[in-house]
Amino acid sequence: MKRTFEPIAFLFPHPVVLVTCINQEGKNNIISISAITTLSRVPVLLGIAIHKGKYSGELIKYSKEFVVNIPGKKFLREIDICGTTHGNIINKFELTKLSIINSNRVKPKLINECPINLECKVINILETGEDDFFVGEVIKVHIEEQILQGDKKVDFSKLDPVIFCNRNYHELGNFIDFFGFSQKNHLL
Amino acid sequence: MKRTFEPIAFLFPHPVVLVTCINQEGKNNIISISAITTLSRVPVLLGIAIHKGKYSGELIKYSKEFVVNIPGKKFLREIDICGTTHGNIINKFELTKLSIINSNRVKPKLINECPINLECKVINILETGEDDFFVGEVIKVHIEEQILQGDKKVDFSKLDPVIFCNRNYHELGNFIDFFGFSQKNHLL
Repeated sequence: MKRTFEPIAFLFPHPVVLVTCINQEGKNNIISISAITTLSRVPVLLGIAIHKGKYSGELIKYSKEFVVNIPGKKFLREIDICGTTHGNIINKFELTKLSIINSNRVKPKLINECPINLECKVINILETGEDDFFVGEVIKVHIEEQILQGDKKVDFSKLDPVIFCNRNYHELGNFIDFFGFSQKNHLL
Repeated sequence: MKRTFEPIAFLFPHPVVLVTCINQEGKNNIISISAITTLSRVPVLLGIAIHKGKYSGELIKYSKEFVVNIPGKKFLREIDICGTTHGNIINKFELTKLSIINSNRVKPKLINECPINLECKVINILETGEDDFFVGEVIKVHIEEQILQGDKKVDFSKLDPVIFCNRNYHELGNFIDFFGFSQKNHLL
């Protein structure tokens, strides 16, 4: 039996990423985000939503650049700190001890401890209710060799990403099957 | 040691949902989508990306309505079929045997077997490279009582959602900690 409700903003499973940005004076900031989606493949686009008025959103609006850093589970404390503190009053890099390396093509930095870093240029900003939705073109990708499986494929079990669901952090669970399995097992 | 690449469109962990839509003659269709993100809380908005020219995208452009149905793992075969077949040449409801119930406020149907159904009205469409990004306002929510935890909260372990990662289907993994845990355990 189903129950019907007026709109509820609940959170279904999403990846947790750390987005880095930079202000005019070169101060680096980090924000934890789970409101992220892949978009186009050619060009490679992704989108992130940030609550209007947040410090990181203002920085990204100004610089039109950000980096998506994908952390593993062992940095959960750092993830949580970056999601619960405010970059305009605190230096999150000092607080978390996360370290930076320079990007190739954008000013915001790569988080060294994150095995995947995606350098992005903002190509569009859409107002969506309380949030701004930033469409970023991925212009450079960095992947830790230890999580690579073959040439370009990531072994996510080695990355051990964090899933945000219903305001809880979860692990990525077991592999069940591969995309397209029904085409091989079933007569369509 | 990190390696640097030109843009790669790889897929990090995302939820799998079944989006229902309807054509002018009232024929129902289903598409599997993992390119989805939550957006604003007030109003409750979410966004889905669909490759341009896809049948479901064309239907949603016309009707300006869709339903996001969140399935559990036991419907993985149906999820995979809906992601690998084409609604313009096949009836996915007939193929999968999924059943429908009427929505309250929109024409596209709810998938009965999915424990969560979100009725959405399109409030914006943004071209993002090869995809169209549909911003939907959630106007009605249906939740199976058996997965409710208290009044409005969903117990995702009972829902048992499917995570799409790197073209593989995964389970949602173990709970690790709750959002904000660092504020209680660490001096900030």
